[in-house]
Amino acid sequence: MSGKLTVIGLGPGNASQLTPEASEALQAADVVYGYGPYLARIPARAGQRRRASDNGEEIDRATRALKDAAEGASVAVVSGGDPGVFAMAAAICEALERAPSAWRDLELSIVPGITSMLAVAARVGAPLGHDFCALSLSDNLKPWAIVERRLQAAASAGFAIALYNPISRARPWQLQRALEILRTHLPANTPVVFGRAVSRADERILITTLEAADASAADMATCIIVGSPETRLLARPNGTALVYTPRSAGAFKPVIEPGHST
Amino acid sequence: MSGKLTVIGLGPGNASQLTPEASEALQAADVVYGYGPYLARIPARAGQRRRASDNGEEIDRATRALKDAAEGASVAVVSGGDPGVFAMAAAICEALERAPSAWRDLELSIVPGITSMLAVAARVGAPLGHDFCALSLSDNLKPWAIVERRLQAAASAGFAIALYNPISRARPWQLQRALEILRTHLPANTPVVFGRAVSRADERILITTLEAADASAADMATCIIVGSPETRLLARPNGTALVYTPRSAGAFKPVIEPGHST
Repeated sequence: MSGKLTVIGLGPGNASQLTPEASEALQAADVVYGYGPYLARIPARAGQRRRASDNGEEIDRATRALKDAAEGASVAVVSGGDPGVFAMAAAICEALERAPSAWRDLELSIVPGITSMLAVAARVGAPLGHDFCALSLSDNLKPWAIVERRLQAAASAGFAIALYNPISRARPWQLQRALEILRTHLPANTPVVFGRAVSRADERILITTLEAADASAADMATCIIVGSPETRLLARPNGTALVYTPRSAGAFKPVIEPGHST
Repeated sequence: MSGKLTVIGLGPGNASQLTPEASEALQAADVVYGYGPYLARIPARAGQRRRASDNGEEIDRATRALKDAAEGASVAVVSGGDPGVFAMAAAICEALERAPSAWRDLELSIVPGITSMLAVAARVGAPLGHDFCALSLSDNLKPWAIVERRLQAAASAGFAIALYNPISRARPWQLQRALEILRTHLPANTPVVFGRAVSRADERILITTLEAADASAADMATCIIVGSPETRLLARPNGTALVYTPRSAGAFKPVIEPGHST
């Protein structure tokens, strides 16, 4: 079978965070499949075809891309961030398992990218500096009861938590409910970061506390990081703050200087 | 204060996975601090100084880098993978909190990178395709009891699990003990991936099961991914396999074809 399929992570959105490996793989493809807004980020190349589809049509998109590759094309499938994190790599594997078994012969490669939580964390310090979880709040593909159970397990075991897919028009109440659950397990002053469209023109970062966090601060382009009980907020003279989780658990005793000079 | 400090993620090791943002930040620095083997990966630039230190000296390295920046230098601190994941970004924040408060004025930025678990996952499919945790097995900075508790919480709540810092000469028994704990919570045939030095010349990937996993397959350059009860192994005609965790929880019913053709 002569075709080839590459699943490519586009990173958070800024071209400076797209790896050379991803750029080259994009250039090499005859046809690129993806969610419309992700395709729009890719520089056009003469002769390269684009196949845009809507969010939520991942298995159908994956199956069409695999079929194109099975017929001999060099196919790319793109994801924002990293394709292995709540994105197309799992959809491709799933579609391949359901597809004619001859397709399993296809040359398949996956090109990693900077996933959203890492870009958000980098903007504010190191909130994922020790053990952490990544959890999708979407209950389209799993029962909400599983989300609740995982939130409780992660918070009570001391993981920092990155929340993906926090809210959408079709899922309006889940994030507020998730914050309520987290409040029963974590201190009120636990730092919370809302990172929206990080590295893009419409980036917006909000640093708040679990007590004050409000679901209305998030949209579909937001990744939220909730600290652990160890996570610290370090105010800076310019009015910004760093949020970080020390590498040591339960042992942080900062040397506090008398006074505070700039 | 005129100095500047940038914490830079070098990615897994291959230059094709270093972002343009990271390359440019490396070029711009007067002096680069880091663990010796990471510094060795960076192309030399005339006039740029290097400050190598050993693994385990992170807070000391961070303090010296901050001091250089406070004295006016343009300083880079490098981490393998992503600096926010078990790496230098948290050490810099920690050192800054302990340092003279005037240093909080410094221009500080963090450049994310491809962290090890994403590179390992991309090599084998999508083992982190749904909710997952990243956990360091090092008990240098936290009590071992916390590691055990987090392993139990993560496995029993259905997270896939990426294990960082699995083993070292000073920590010889922890990984085997971690595998024993996971065996009490997860099916024996849960897929396990040992990914060593991914993207580098001495890369080695081993796909096995939780039952058969042996700590001796890991070294300091290894990141291990342990699946959830949903994680699937998909054999391919060329003798390799894909490991992936479906996006849907508890609902995967593959259409099995009679026979198996190549």
